[in-house]
Amino acid sequence: MASAIRILGIDPGLRRTGWGVIVSEGSKLSFVACGCVESEGALPLGRRLRQLHEGLHAVIAAHRPLEVAVEETFVNRDPQSALKLGQARGIALVVPALAGLDVAEYAANLVKKTVVGVGHADKKQVQAMIKVLLPRAETGSADAADALAVAICHAQHRGMKALVAGMRAAE
Amino acid sequence: MASAIRILGIDPGLRRTGWGVIVSEGSKLSFVACGCVESEGALPLGRRLRQLHEGLHAVIAAHRPLEVAVEETFVNRDPQSALKLGQARGIALVVPALAGLDVAEYAANLVKKTVVGVGHADKKQVQAMIKVLLPRAETGSADAADALAVAICHAQHRGMKALVAGMRAAE
Repeated sequence: MASAIRILGIDPGLRRTGWGVIVSEGSKLSFVACGCVESEGALPLGRRLRQLHEGLHAVIAAHRPLEVAVEETFVNRDPQSALKLGQARGIALVVPALAGLDVAEYAANLVKKTVVGVGHADKKQVQAMIKVLLPRAETGSADAADALAVAICHAQHRGMKALVAGMRAAE
Repeated sequence: MASAIRILGIDPGLRRTGWGVIVSEGSKLSFVACGCVESEGALPLGRRLRQLHEGLHAVIAAHRPLEVAVEETFVNRDPQSALKLGQARGIALVVPALAGLDVAEYAANLVKKTVVGVGHADKKQVQAMIKVLLPRAETGSADAADALAVAICHAQHRGMKALVAGMRAAE
């Protein structure tokens, strides 16, 4: 019997970090909540990261996920952008870890492939598929939709991992 | 009259983040403490960042700095390394910010120029100058020495900033 697992997906970004919570029960997925945590561009970097830290902490406190998944952003841009994104990503990874939660990471291509069926899907295709998979989801932004996509990706792949582990245990 | 300011310098890195605390009183600098916060390479990334987060939090709790300075690492490497460094840097910036402290950032070149006199000094030259400027410092590692160098850089430049602000106010 599959038990219900509450999953938080995070799509990190310095200006706006998307988040989405779903419940996965066997093959059934249901929407819980989603949104964005934002930082004010005019503030010093430390203060901006603090805004993301406090925002994600509040999301975890409110929605109490059991598992967390973060997008492993593909970096093909300049090192300076990668550094900036890394700073936001550090916050997305450490806040769940401080709450004692394990954080799974999924490559952006795998997330898109799992949700849309192709690894190079664009943001609009992801948003459209989220509407199909989670009809009740009100994704105000592409970042929230991407975060829900990461959560769905984790729901699919954690199931496979558990299945493989179960088969191995039964051998 | 110059009042004593306790400054924490941080040299961020995922495997090892150096830290150093000094007291700056007018033109006089004195050593308080330094060391490294490490993360275990075998752990998942979230757990590693949590180790850095908790380590830096403990340093701030123990040494109660009034001001914090972080090295603005020059990134000329590939985006993947920049992303990794960014994650550690995010922690170095957010932990002081969560404690309500402002975090100043200084380019690595400026730090070296301030401490050694040239912007392209190597780690050994920095360590040697730290021994001259802070004779009581026991820098076990290059990272701790670099962190003390950032703190010294901040001590010099915050003084200049205050002087300029004072001159403007007197006009």
